[in-house]
Formats: sequence, structure tokens, C-alpha cells
Amino acid sequence: METDVVVKRRDVMPQGATTLPAPFYIDDAYFRREMESLYRRMWVCVGRVEQIETPGQFVVREMLGESIIITTNGAGSVKAFYNVCRHRGTKLCTEQEGTFGRSIQCPYHAWTYDLDGSLIGAPHMEEVPHFRKADYPLHAVHADVWDGHIFVNLSPEPRPLLEQLASLPGRFVPWRMQELRLGHRIVYDVKANWKLLIQNYNECLHCPNLHPALNKLSHYLSGENEPLQPTYMGGRMDLRPGVNTLTWDGTCDRASLPGLSSDDARRVYYYAIFPNMLLSLHPDYMMVHTLWPQGPDRTINICEWHFHPNEIARPDFDPKDAVEFWDLTNRQDWHVCELSQAGISSRAYTPGPYSNREDLLYAFDQMIRGVHEGGG
Amino acid sequence: METDVVVKRRDVMPQGATTLPAPFYIDDAYFRREMESLYRRMWVCVGRVEQIETPGQFVVREMLGESIIITTNGAGSVKAFYNVCRHRGTKLCTEQEGTFGRSIQCPYHAWTYDLDGSLIGAPHMEEVPHFRKADYPLHAVHADVWDGHIFVNLSPEPRPLLEQLASLPGRFVPWRMQELRLGHRIVYDVKANWKLLIQNYNECLHCPNLHPALNKLSHYLSGENEPLQPTYMGGRMDLRPGVNTLTWDGTCDRASLPGLSSDDARRVYYYAIFPNMLLSLHPDYMMVHTLWPQGPDRTINICEWHFHPNEIARPDFDPKDAVEFWDLTNRQDWHVCELSQAGISSRAYTPGPYSNREDLLYAFDQMIRGVHEGGG
Amino acid sequence: METDVVVKRRDVMPQGATTLPAPFYIDDAYFRREMESLYRRMWVCVGRVEQIETPGQFVVREMLGESIIITTNGAGSVKAFYNVCRHRGTKLCTEQEGTFGRSIQCPYHAWTYDLDGSLIGAPHMEEVPHFRKADYPLHAVHADVWDGHIFVNLSPEPRPLLEQLASLPGRFVPWRMQELRLGHRIVYDVKANWKLLIQNYNECLHCPNLHPALNKLSHYLSGENEPLQPTYMGGRMDLRPGVNTLTWDGTCDRASLPGLSSDDARRVYYYAIFPNMLLSLHPDYMMVHTLWPQGPDRTINICEWHFHPNEIARPDFDPKDAVEFWDLTNRQDWHVCELSQAGISSRAYTPGPYSNREDLLYAFDQMIRGVHEGGG
Repeated sequence: METDVVVKRRDVMPQGATTLPAPFYIDDAYFRREMESLYRRMWVCVGRVEQIETPGQFVVREMLGESIIITTNGAGSVKAFYNVCRHRGTKLCTEQEGTFGRSIQCPYHAWTYDLDGSLIGAPHMEEVPHFRKADYPLHAVHADVWDGHIFVNLSPEPRPLLEQLASLPGRFVPWRMQELRLGHRIVYDVKANWKLLIQNYNECLHCPNLHPALNKLSHYLSGENEPLQPTYMGGRMDLRPGVNTLTWDGTCDRASLPGLSSDDARRVYYYAIFPNMLLSLHPDYMMVHTLWPQGPDRTINICEWHFHPNEIARPDFDPKDAVEFWDLTNRQDWHVCELSQAGISSRAYTPGPYSNREDLLYAFDQMIRGVHEGGG
Repeated sequence: METDVVVKRRDVMPQGATTLPAPFYIDDAYFRREMESLYRRMWVCVGRVEQIETPGQFVVREMLGESIIITTNGAGSVKAFYNVCRHRGTKLCTEQEGTFGRSIQCPYHAWTYDLDGSLIGAPHMEEVPHFRKADYPLHAVHADVWDGHIFVNLSPEPRPLLEQLASLPGRFVPWRMQELRLGHRIVYDVKANWKLLIQNYNECLHCPNLHPALNKLSHYLSGENEPLQPTYMGGRMDLRPGVNTLTWDGTCDRASLPGLSSDDARRVYYYAIFPNMLLSLHPDYMMVHTLWPQGPDRTINICEWHFHPNEIARPDFDPKDAVEFWDLTNRQDWHVCELSQAGISSRAYTPGPYSNREDLLYAFDQMIRGVHEGGG
Repeated sequence: METDVVVKRRDVMPQGATTLPAPFYIDDAYFRREMESLYRRMWVCVGRVEQIETPGQFVVREMLGESIIITTNGAGSVKAFYNVCRHRGTKLCTEQEGTFGRSIQCPYHAWTYDLDGSLIGAPHMEEVPHFRKADYPLHAVHADVWDGHIFVNLSPEPRPLLEQLASLPGRFVPWRMQELRLGHRIVYDVKANWKLLIQNYNECLHCPNLHPALNKLSHYLSGENEPLQPTYMGGRMDLRPGVNTLTWDGTCDRASLPGLSSDDARRVYYYAIFPNMLLSLHPDYMMVHTLWPQGPDRTINICEWHFHPNEIARPDFDPKDAVEFWDLTNRQDWHVCELSQAGISSRAYTPGPYSNREDLLYAFDQMIRGVHEGGG
């Protein structure tokens, strides 16, 4: 081992600490329970406030078989609605992003809603006795924001977002994530269970073999994990001496984000915020993956790179060094996730033993077991 | 409202008159019950006599998972058979239309049937004791004709076609549909439940918003509906003054169909003949949609335009004005049907209130409820 | 009938000898039982020894939802393993053929196995108490060879291959199949149940109608069937006078295989070796079909033509005459198999009567009935 790497010893795994049995990854019933217990009850990251800054600006997200409109009424608050007309159920909006006028109108019979979701027009319904517009607002979805990240929650009476995020908002204040702006987005279609992507994200034991370029910049045994928390897990890794960030050659023209301590300017933080957000904070940029499970064996993965507006404003701004480095690394990761999905589907698959470097995965698995034992 | 429109007041809807719950549109069990109770028991419109005029001329229709041969023996009667050899079950005919010789021969072992479906050749079967050709005719399907429209019925002992059509044959005599000939055909693949297409067809409340071109030619509040009948529903709409038919500009070079009253030459009749035929009679042409449900959320829709042979014979005959007008209108309709299918699939969908202009839909829904309550 | 054909009379079929009911061909439960009872318990032909002659050379076969690595350790024995890492279940090998180095390494965390399947490397696992490499070999699959044909068996403790092959190895010694080498391979994707392909292969009643070219070379009533055996069925057909083999014109430049009797040099032997091998021995070449069921209504069919190495070594060697003849015949056969699958799926399908020329099919069907009655 190189002498310049500080390796923190991990606790020894409990005996019999193995991967999960196959049904957790391939069985429809397991998938549905996880969608009900985690994705429909927790706050799910759906985008960035910069996408809905002007009144009526919107994005539409397809999740859990639902289509959700996320917009703003211009009074600074984020609004989310099911994309379903209250008249005959018509999907209101077919674009994935855009700007409404002052209202949202159904293309079928012209029922019209304001940006708060209230019904303000319903042709010929005045002839129907007892009909009151007030009874037919759009079905609302809870929405909230953390430092520029928009979250929605499909449960009827969710606990607050801040409760789910726990200590994270306090810890990541120095990165001023609310100031950062999108530099690039890539959408991946991965033929693997969403949990395999989270597990892949939370260990670097695979880095020497799978990501030699990454391992040259940040030693796989460096850094430290935080113990698993109820709603997230993660840790940090250290950049090697002479390396400033994660790009092809470990350097970049960009300044570190303002406000970072000198220690944090030499680290990358990797946090999986359950159920669907992977937050990777680099000295000079933020990478965010959001996971969109499509079935037990398929997950859409949206990866975004966000930069400081001062950097984006520079005439020679070019995010390519960060994007290409991670695009390669992402593709290596999704490929082995797909191989895992394929192998776990075999009748010959039996749970295998975890090493001490896979401690977070074992803890995560125990949490997932709880979801299923709890009856969903 | 324009002063030139005669608006007939509709009855007030009963309180609580709402659209159907989601399972009627998305649940496989509901779909199967409707296929069994309606499509397999009723007469289904499958084409036009002009397609099978010479002996052995045939069309093949794929419906309800079955392949049906429809042909004629030259003695003037329509014959329909399951497209299945009685020997080893081989599908006999792979073309969708064509002309048999004097017989229908299986490509596998050359079992041969005459145009009445009787087995007339079966190589080497003479060596098998007790084998009698008379025991192995093609499985027949009931077929009948109304004014040039061919119907088949998959039930073993159906009630007569005329009983299903009730008063319609008497009413539509003046259009002499049996004389009309195909001018154009377009096949649409609609990702929506078949009932949404029928419901869309039977109200014009959506016309001002969705079909401004149509609404300019025929006011959406004009005309009159007949109360729902057990096997069909429909009504008529009036053309505006100066409008002669439904084309881009409301005019055409074609004469009205011979035999129409002056009143009928100023109207369009729209009848949904359950379960699969939408019959739209214009002053100068007949439009026929037939619906071919493929699943709860998908329906093939074949649209045909038929004209008088005198018009077709004219050197300058061009059906484009009628075809393009309706092709646009069709596409607008199928698009909102697909949006309704999408929205109704949401867990947030709840049945919404009908207006008085959607009276036929509410009545149709009650009939559909009866199908499911009857146990199918 | 031509006077030069010796027709052996077949026994009269028992009364009521008909094809199988539809569920045997279209029902998922029937398919799964056949996969469990036949394909997972019997020896399945997967390729030829010539594909894995050097140490580490391998092929991967996808069968029954499993991916199987077949390789050799250089000590002359064939090895087969599930393509699944014992660590986290990752699929080890994504190529369909190739050559391993001295070991097989997982791309994810670099667990490494030797060519006998023993785990020889597992990074960081030495930190885990009680972990022993010896506990984690690759999951092995039984493999064996008959005259160059490789077979695998997925059951944990199979009966010997030779027991399944019964009298066949003794009978086919003169063809020296182990010496023959691949000349050409075509993969067909057939939308039909695997049993329909076997049934098609085991009668020539369809030849006059479907394969006129074949029938000109080898009369459909010639030859003789062996009674059905527990693990195979087949028979021989005679070449017509002046015909030397099955090619377009019945001639070829190739010598007959050395060692054939003069009688066998005038015959073609057709044997279906259950569950997945169709072995067709011609005077000058061997054709092998292997069947790979994908579902009740779909079968991948790999067809290979093998020749004597002396012929392949000739500068003017060209297998085209044999390949093109059978490629046409194959396509004709798979087409009617697909038509049968389509027709049998109709509700109108009823089992039809077999002729005396379909005796093997009826016997095969009885064996298949036994599979399902035995409870699978």
C-alpha cells in the first residue's frame, strides 16, 4: 500500500454477513413493497429549483406509474400536482418541461385550473345541480426544497422533509448547493435493481479492478464512512497528493467552491440519501444521481453535474473534464450492476460473504430486510 | 351563442352521475369480461361485402385472439371459418386478403376444404379405420350482412343480426349503404381502452376546444340524441348554414346521396353500434370506424370512407377533402383518448362529474356496469 | 407410387389417436413442467468438443434462464459452471465464446477462479474471520461427451449420459462423429413450441406438399422408423436411385464418410434425441439441430453442418450445396410449425386425427402426457 494513504480500519463484519437472497432483486412482490414502503412514503428528489423559477414554469416527472407536475405560482413556493384532470381523468400536460400561462387547461373539455391547482373553469357544469368548483381542485402532492433540490412526497400526510434529511442540511452548508447551476445532464437506462446501484455507490472495493483511473486520483482505501443512518448513508474519500478534483488528470481550471474548508477542498463526499438520491460533492462541482425504478430489474438513472455560476459565466467554461471522467466511471458501474442483476437471477446464486470494506452494504441490507419484515 | 343554432335542452343528470372507476379501463379482468360478454356474444362488424364479391375471395380478420376467414362460395352467401386446420391445427391462410381457388388447402399436410368448409381431401387418412371426412369440416363462424356491412358472431347459437340492429335498418334505408364503395382506409393504433373511444364519439362537448375546425361547420350544441338503446346509441348534428358536408371548407363537388330527404342532407348522423362499429352518415359519404380491442389499454381502429359509385366513377373524383378533415379530427380524438387512458391509470384518479351534454356516456356506463354485475 | 420405392407398411393407429390438446403447446404451466422434468433432468446437447480444445477455451450457453460456462482445463476433461460469481452474484463472462487465461476473474471485485472452478483469489476477504476460499468454488454443472458432442445436465446427481443415449453410441460408431468438424452454422428463431419442431422432424407425411425438392431425392414413404424409445426416436429414409446425398441436385463432390457400409451410404438417419438434439446423418455430412426453448411459443434452433476434415481441407471445399438445401427445407418446416402454433392457440382448435404415417408423433405425445401426469 502506498505510504501516502491513510487507511482507517473497518470493523470486522459479523459472522454470516452475506448479500441478500435473490428475491430481493428479482421478485415483483419485493419490488412493489419497496416502492410502497420507501418510494411512496419518503421524500424523493425530483429536480432543481432553477428549473421552475418563473411563474408557471414546470417540469413533469414520471414516477411509480404516476405523472407529477411540479411548478411554481410565482410566490416563491413549489407546487406539485397529479397530472390528472378532475373531470374525466385526462392527462393534462404532455410536455416534460415548459411554462404554463396563468393557468393549466385540460385539452379535452377545457377544464381550467390556476397555478395553485384550484378549478377556475368548467364549461357547462353550471347546469349541473350541486356542482361546486371548489370540490374539484387538482390532486396535490407535497413538495419541499433543500438547498435548491426539489423533493416530493406521495404520501397523504408526510413527516417534514427536514426530518428525513436529519443532519445533512447542517453538514453541507459550506457547499452552498442552492447557488449551483446545471452544467450537464446524462440519462442512463440500467437493467438492474435500484438497490444494486446504491450498493455499488457505497463501496470502493471494486475501484482498483473496475475504475483504475479513479483509483489513481483517490485511493480506494482512503477516507471514512459514517455509520448507516435511518434515511441515508455515506462517507468521504481523500484525493491523492497533487490531485485537485476528479477529472481525467486530477486538475481543473475551476476554483474550489467558495466557503469550503481546506480539508473539504481535498475530499469527495458520497452520500446516498434514501430512497433515490446519490449526492457527490467535489471540491469544485456537485454531481447528483437520481434513481427512478422501473421494475425489479430496471432503473432509470439521471446524472447531473452542477457548477458555481461564476465558473459557468466564464467564457472558457467547459464541464467536459468532469462529465467525461464520471460518464466513463458511471458506465463501468452500471455495467457491473447489470452483470450482478443477471447473475443473481440464476437459480445457482446463493448469498455471498461481505468483506469489511462492504460494511455499509450489509447495514443497508438489514434496513431493507426490515422493510419486508415490516409487512410493507 | 350564435342565433342560428337550435339547441335542444338536455335532461339534468342525476346527482352523483360520474365517470366509471379506474378498473373498468385498466384491469385485465374487466377487459376479459367485456370481451366475453360483448365481443364474443354480439355481432361484430368486420368489413364490407365488396371485399368478397367473387367466389373464393376472402379477408382474414384477427379478433379476440382468433383468426377468422371470411369468404363467399359464389352462391351469394357469406361464409366465415376459424383459420385452423382440423388435422393438426395449422393456420390455413396467412394473407390478410386474396382469393382462394376452388378450395382451401392446408400448407402442412394438404388437407383440403371446399368453400363451404367441408373437408374434401386428407392424404393417407383413408388408411385410418372409422375416419370420415364428414366429421372434420372447418369450424364455422356465424356471418350475416346488413346493407353491405358484414358482421360475424363467435357465439355458438347467436340471436339474429336484425334483432341486434333493432330499428337501425329501417331508419337508414335512404342512405342505400349497400351501394356505397370504399374510397379510403386508415388504420389507427390507439393506446386507450375501447370504451374511451366510444365515449369520445358520443359527445361533442369537447368539440369547441379540441376540434375548432369541426365546430365551425357543425355547432357542438346542435342536433339531438336518441336515448340509449340496448345495442346502440347515437344522434344527429346539424350543419351550419352554408355548410354542405364535413370537409375543410364545408363544401364539396360531390352530390348528396340519392334518396336523402332535404333535412337529412343537412345533418350528420353518428351512431355507435355496440360493440365495435361507429357509423357516421354524411350527406355525401359514409364513414365507418371499427374497433378492435387488443387489451385494456390498446385498441386498433380501422376508419373507412365510402362514397357513391357514381362519384367514384367521375374522372376527377378525389376523397381527400373528407379524408383529411376527418383524419385530423380522428387524430385529435385518439390523442385525448390516450391522455384519458394515461390519467385514469393514476392512483390519484377519482371518477369525475358528467355534464348534461354527456348524457349518452352516463347511460352507456350504466350498461357497462350491468355487464360486470351480471357476472359476464 | 413409383415402383422404385420400398414402402414399409405402418401399423394402424389406435382408434382415437389424436394430437394433444392446446394447453400442451400454449400454457405456461405445461411449459414449465416440461422444462423441469425434461430439460433440467436430462442431458442437453450444447456444442462440440472442437469449440473447447485448448486450455481455457470456452463457450457460454444461455439455457433455461441460466448462463452456463463450458470450458476445459487442458487435462482433456470438459468443465461446466454456472456463470455466477460466489461473492456478489456477478455474471463472470459476457462473451459467448473465447479463451480464458489461466483463470476466470470477476470484473467487479476481482474474485478469481482456476479452470477447475476453485476460488484462488478474493481481495480483502482474508480480514474476515472463518472465511475459507475452499468454501466458494464456482457452482459446477455436470458435463460429458459423446463422439464429439458435448452434453450438460443441470440436475445435481444425474444418471450417466451413456444410459440416456442407450443403443445410439453403438449404432452410430461407423460415422466417426468425433472426427467431423463444423462447416456452417445458422441460428433460427422459431415462434413455436419446441415439441412442434420435434414432431415436424419425425414425420415425412408433409414432404410432398411442403418439400417437393426433398421428396424428389428421398421418397416420403421410404425407409423405416424404429419404435419410440424412452429417450429418443427416429428412423431412416432411403435416397432414390442416382441420388448420393441431400443437396439441390442430389450429388456432391464429397466422398462418403469413411467406414460407412454401402447400405448406410444410401440412407439418411434422422434421430430426435430428447430433449433437444436432432441428429441427421447423411452419407457425407452430419447435420445437428439443437433446440433452446424460450417459452411455450418460441424456440431458438441452432443448426450446424459438420464434415469430414479431409473434405474441409480440400481447396475447393464448399458446404453450400448441403447448407442451402437444408436452409430452405428448415425454413419451410419452421414456417408450418409457426402456423401450427398460431392455429393451436385458437379456442376453436380441437385435437385432430393422426394418420399411420404419424406413428412416432403419437408415441411421443404419450410420453409427453406421462411427464405431466407424473406431476413434473
